Amino acid sequence: MEIPTLADMLIAHERVKPYIHRTPVLTSRFIDDLMGASLFFKCENLQKAGAFKARGASNAVFGLTDEQAAKGVATHSSGNHGTCLSYAAGRRGIPCTVVMPRTAPQAKKDAVKGYGGRVVECEPSTTSREAVFAEVVAETGAEFVHPYNDPRVIAGQGTCSKELIEQVEGLDSVIAPIGGGGMVSGTCLTLSNLGPQVKIYAAEPEQADDAYRSFKAGHIIADDAPETVADGLKVPLKDLTWHFVQNHVADIFTASEDEIIEAMKLIWKRMKIVIEPSSAVPLACILKNKDIFAGKRVGVIITGGNVDLDKLPWM
Amino acid sequence: MEIPTLADMLIAHERVKPYIHRTPVLTSRFIDDLMGASLFFKCENLQKAGAFKARGASNAVFGLTDEQAAKGVATHSSGNHGTCLSYAAGRRGIPCTVVMPRTAPQAKKDAVKGYGGRVVECEPSTTSREAVFAEVVAETGAEFVHPYNDPRVIAGQGTCSKELIEQVEGLDSVIAPIGGGGMVSGTCLTLSNLGPQVKIYAAEPEQADDAYRSFKAGHIIADDAPETVADGLKVPLKDLTWHFVQNHVADIFTASEDEIIEAMKLIWKRMKIVIEPSSAVPLACILKNKDIFAGKRVGVIITGGNVDLDKLPWM
Repeated sequence: MEIPTLADMLIAHERVKPYIHRTPVLTSRFIDDLMGASLFFKCENLQKAGAFKARGASNAVFGLTDEQAAKGVATHSSGNHGTCLSYAAGRRGIPCTVVMPRTAPQAKKDAVKGYGGRVVECEPSTTSREAVFAEVVAETGAEFVHPYNDPRVIAGQGTCSKELIEQVEGLDSVIAPIGGGGMVSGTCLTLSNLGPQVKIYAAEPEQADDAYRSFKAGHIIADDAPETVADGLKVPLKDLTWHFVQNHVADIFTASEDEIIEAMKLIWKRMKIVIEPSSAVPLACILKNKDIFAGKRVGVIITGGNVDLDKLPWM
Repeated sequence: MEIPTLADMLIAHERVKPYIHRTPVLTSRFIDDLMGASLFFKCENLQKAGAFKARGASNAVFGLTDEQAAKGVATHSSGNHGTCLSYAAGRRGIPCTVVMPRTAPQAKKDAVKGYGGRVVECEPSTTSREAVFAEVVAETGAEFVHPYNDPRVIAGQGTCSKELIEQVEGLDSVIAPIGGGGMVSGTCLTLSNLGPQVKIYAAEPEQADDAYRSFKAGHIIADDAPETVADGLKVPLKDLTWHFVQNHVADIFTASEDEIIEAMKLIWKRMKIVIEPSSAVPLACILKNKDIFAGKRVGVIITGGNVDLDKLPWM
């Protein structure tokens, strides 16, 4: 296990700057009044390809030697990581293959292809995915970039909270959604070094609360295919992300499906930004734990904005 | 007719700064590629109360003497101006009355009340509105702040393009939606003085193209209750706004309902921001007139983001 360092994150930030947005931090007086706290929303929904994962993917892609890069990159993902890896590979002009279940939404496949990547379909099972992915790597020699359990990816995600503490002074805490733990690990990497006084919280759907249970139990618990509207948060922790969660996270909160959807709609309505359900979990958790955040300056990571506008969860 | 001056706009900007956001300018590589131009979106949907009208309303409210202010402000509006005047009055702590047809959406009435304003209902006719409004003014002595045909309002709206040319260098043109012409007039006021090389275009729904026809005819043409999804753009030009349009606008383009909705969805999908239909008319017009904008640096005013999330036009 190779744990990324502060230096890795700083190098990552210099490396990815030309390919990512320094996303804005937005505030809402209405939501602040409702929460009794000062919330600073770091808007990675406005990031390239619509998600923070452009950071980690760009760091992985642009950190390759020319020789490695020539063979391209590959991953398995039916979410934002696949799209963002395709984006980053496209910017470098190298091949990218994303293995996806044939049952994945057409929009997700189109997003990968839109940035120039290749989609290879597998059956919707772990066995098939692993077999098909092994074939892709054998055939291409492509570099595997894991969606989150990869030091290059974690170092890249850490650039988000580096920007946040440059943009907002005196934060008391930062809260981010947790699925596999890539964003939370990057946040831990950065803040444990550059902002050790800032408390780090994670927010998770009740219906996919494996990180919460892992945190309480003291070891990784992985669930089999949980169902939640926050579809970016279904995957389990892995050794690298567990390392950061275990050592640096102050607490993990959970929210119900209804609470997530309500928080999502509140952000759309009052802040006029399009966010995906996963991005709403932190606000839902703040609402439920007002006492903890009362009077505090809280950074809230809005992780992405890739939703199907024809199928919004409140319809 | 009192035509606002550059000095009025500069004073307005200093006056309103504490009460408005300096809204960000966003870009989209995808949309740029589609258009063959560089578009810079000035995001007034992220403005206080969700619309650029917070600028003009704040300038009017904070420009009042204490004696005037004590009697409050009043207007008739079933759109963003009513909400924004209520917002500004709330910030100053003075009364605000908005006369609205009883048939106006409840959400619009609630928005005015949410900022502390009072809603007085009239019948949905001009006669009733004028009678009820006269009563309100007689009773309260409130200062009338017209939604657009008011020099204080136009000077306030002009602060938007002042920020835009500070934020983006070397613009070739700016395009904004046109209804009554408040934003376009403010843009003309500012750019004719501070950026005379920047061409000013206006964008209008085909189904409410009275400004377009006025512009071509050389005199104001007002339509009776046009129907369009771009509900902020139904009102006619008045003498002050006509002055600016006639003297400083390079051209007015129009777009169909379908084109407006398609452009709206494109912005939501690719830029991850919530905009109202009126805000999409400029992009719809650029798409139809690619030759004019090809290779240019174009400022696009996103005027507001107040929509009913339960009734989106593509549903």
